[in-house]
Amino acid sequence: MVEVAELPRNETGIGTVLGVLKQQFGDRLQTGQAIREQHAHTTTWIANQAPDGVVFAQSTQEVSDIVTVCAAHRVPIIAYGTGTSLEGHVNAPAGGICIDLMQMDKVLEVNASDLDCRVQPGVTREALNTYLRDQGLFFPIDPGANASLGGMTATRASGTNAVRYGTMKDNVLSLEAVMADGRIIRTASRARKSSAGYDLTRLLVGSEGTLAMITEITLRLQGIPEAISAARCSFPSIEAASRAVMATIQYGLPVARIELLDTMVVQALNNYSKLDLPETPLLLLEFHGSEAGVAEQSETFGALAEEEGGTGFEVTASLEERNRLWQARHDAYWAMLALKPGCDAVASDVCVPISRLAEAVAACEAKAKEMKLIAPVVGHAGDGNFHASLLIDKEDKEERARAAAFISWLNTLAISMDGTCTGEHGIGQGKRAYLVSELGQGTVDVMGAIKRALDPDNIMNPGKILPG
Amino acid sequence: MVEVAELPRNETGIGTVLGVLKQQFGDRLQTGQAIREQHAHTTTWIANQAPDGVVFAQSTQEVSDIVTVCAAHRVPIIAYGTGTSLEGHVNAPAGGICIDLMQMDKVLEVNASDLDCRVQPGVTREALNTYLRDQGLFFPIDPGANASLGGMTATRASGTNAVRYGTMKDNVLSLEAVMADGRIIRTASRARKSSAGYDLTRLLVGSEGTLAMITEITLRLQGIPEAISAARCSFPSIEAASRAVMATIQYGLPVARIELLDTMVVQALNNYSKLDLPETPLLLLEFHGSEAGVAEQSETFGALAEEEGGTGFEVTASLEERNRLWQARHDAYWAMLALKPGCDAVASDVCVPISRLAEAVAACEAKAKEMKLIAPVVGHAGDGNFHASLLIDKEDKEERARAAAFISWLNTLAISMDGTCTGEHGIGQGKRAYLVSELGQGTVDVMGAIKRALDPDNIMNPGKILPG
Repeated sequence: MVEVAELPRNETGIGTVLGVLKQQFGDRLQTGQAIREQHAHTTTWIANQAPDGVVFAQSTQEVSDIVTVCAAHRVPIIAYGTGTSLEGHVNAPAGGICIDLMQMDKVLEVNASDLDCRVQPGVTREALNTYLRDQGLFFPIDPGANASLGGMTATRASGTNAVRYGTMKDNVLSLEAVMADGRIIRTASRARKSSAGYDLTRLLVGSEGTLAMITEITLRLQGIPEAISAARCSFPSIEAASRAVMATIQYGLPVARIELLDTMVVQALNNYSKLDLPETPLLLLEFHGSEAGVAEQSETFGALAEEEGGTGFEVTASLEERNRLWQARHDAYWAMLALKPGCDAVASDVCVPISRLAEAVAACEAKAKEMKLIAPVVGHAGDGNFHASLLIDKEDKEERARAAAFISWLNTLAISMDGTCTGEHGIGQGKRAYLVSELGQGTVDVMGAIKRALDPDNIMNPGKILPG
Repeated sequence: MVEVAELPRNETGIGTVLGVLKQQFGDRLQTGQAIREQHAHTTTWIANQAPDGVVFAQSTQEVSDIVTVCAAHRVPIIAYGTGTSLEGHVNAPAGGICIDLMQMDKVLEVNASDLDCRVQPGVTREALNTYLRDQGLFFPIDPGANASLGGMTATRASGTNAVRYGTMKDNVLSLEAVMADGRIIRTASRARKSSAGYDLTRLLVGSEGTLAMITEITLRLQGIPEAISAARCSFPSIEAASRAVMATIQYGLPVARIELLDTMVVQALNNYSKLDLPETPLLLLEFHGSEAGVAEQSETFGALAEEEGGTGFEVTASLEERNRLWQARHDAYWAMLALKPGCDAVASDVCVPISRLAEAVAACEAKAKEMKLIAPVVGHAGDGNFHASLLIDKEDKEERARAAAFISWLNTLAISMDGTCTGEHGIGQGKRAYLVSELGQGTVDVMGAIKRALDPDNIMNPGKILPG
């Protein structure tokens, strides 16, 4: 485990708030140790820092009530969805109250004609897509985990479809949110575009619960494409695969997904999922469009790939085949874990301009080898975003230190390439140290000024994003 | 003219700052009345409020120097590009210093592989597209006017291509900006996506110079499509045309432009541009893609339009024909003015969910008739954004009052439909009264808190966006 500094606790305030909340919420306030620990960070090597109580909120008004009580006593508030974040976002380093939003799980409105919907934050992306399917609509953002839409909004999530459909910032039309003093605001109308004042929607998307609690989300939707096909293509090297990605993007081919798997991941998948993929770097793709459009896209990609030495290019329109391919991609995490039984996987998340992708991934692989670390790479290559997952022994202190040094090196490399230390996982606790080197002190100071203006007592998810 | 309240002037500070700037900038500081008036609002019925001096800045450092001097003496600073904004953004109600950024007109960097570029704020969109053309790239946002990219960023501009390519918020990757104390910051890296802290890029896009001065813009670019075709189709009614637009968007057809012109605009164009279009509501379209893709798109649109009674559907791939069609669209403003020689045109800018577009435009036409106003309508219909332009006599006080009442009615209508009073022109001075009714006092208070945090002395473009 990586220890994260505790912050000063307001014991008196916490005690008072727990008493007040018990009166209003009864059994919907839980303070048992197990439930508190489940509601803090559990997914990576960052240590668990449990809140003092967990309230299961059922309405915006209840969230506002909780925030109002916490504000009166200067007690921290942390939002909780499915707990799948990777950078310690849901930890409570100063204690406080966790608001579990998963009982706020209603799809409130679907406007099929306008391709939008309004949901509560506890709706998961899979639940939304199940709800939408018979209307011929879908919500495209897919970070892998079946995360809550509130959590995805708070971390500016993206994933495999972002190359075509953008990230959460591009797919949230408006938010309802509870501010640090309990006020309920709506950030925008339901118009597709607007120039009405500051873009509070985009300010809250990715703010990781440090500025406000998101209580409703108005999302853009897409029509389910007439045709979908999936494809795979193997390449002689990471550089060749990356060049094929670059050519595809430059060509303007509207690929829906273009995922890069390095040789180690392909080997892991062959073992884990009983496949017989050529053990070289692989691209997995998906094309959305009309029947003719999809056929044309895959043909164009095939030609671009061939120029970079791509082989074994296979396209399938069969739903079963397509699911098998993407199941393998989704299994990559488990397949990687199986490379080193009993290990922990710690994901890095850098994103670089795609012209630097080949160089960055190659350097990453070489550095891991040099540092004797197992670090298979998967990437949302069309965006220049890739994850080297370090497979480390939970108990091996020396290996953990090497892994931390590697991640630090990789983040610094990405930043030196005019990229970012986090393409989609967020800053949380884990990456606070890199924010200044990436953006400069002046920029981080501006973020701090906004934080102080909207949350003067620092009760909204303290200890996240901004360096301490 | 519509008078806008003057704000208290800091005479001593202004005098001191003019003296200091004269020393540094010599003849690049101008204080003659004509040049000062040219650098304030000149485009609509909002009265001209000239700054006290105009500085022609040539570098970010110079902008920072000017802001630092103004900050020390609490003197207002207003950015100026091409002066094509419509809501009084460049007025100086408290006097102060206008920074003309048009000498900062360099394209600093084009990364063709990454489909991005970095420009100074005085580059116009036409200049950028001319610069990019031989690399096979283009910047898609087209607000009509040949505006500066700095101004387009500041007002979150969009225009005819937004239905496919989004607005400025979707096409700015990163900004360099000078904050109210003279600090220079960069908001983001050049990565295609990021979850690194608050989205300061999107906070500054659309902030109308009230939070910072934009000194560099990193933009996303597009490859010039392999094929482009244009089309037109006439409809028996505004409702039918709007339903065809809705069907097109719902179908997911990736139209590059889909513009609505009402009967009055078509008549005006027939007169002005010597065309013989059927005098009924008209849609003008553009399709981008591969040869086959463009053909398929226009065929699909043709079928959708026919279901709504569309007639005279004509498609052309000829560049000359295409230019003629879009020239007519661009001439709409002049054609409308010719409907009432010597008049002023005052553009409204509402945007509604597209399911309400037919209803909104029909109500708008009926209300104009009832109020005896000439108000031709053009619309970026795919986004639900339309402009009723009121043709009014400059000197007729009573007609001006009716026009103001009409715009107020229209803004209120759009807001009641969960739309916005401004799809793309911004709030400026002209629409401040509507911000609270659109978004609520709580939301506007949050904007105010951000403004005070980043510009505590209210020197950055005072009197804009936020209600006084």
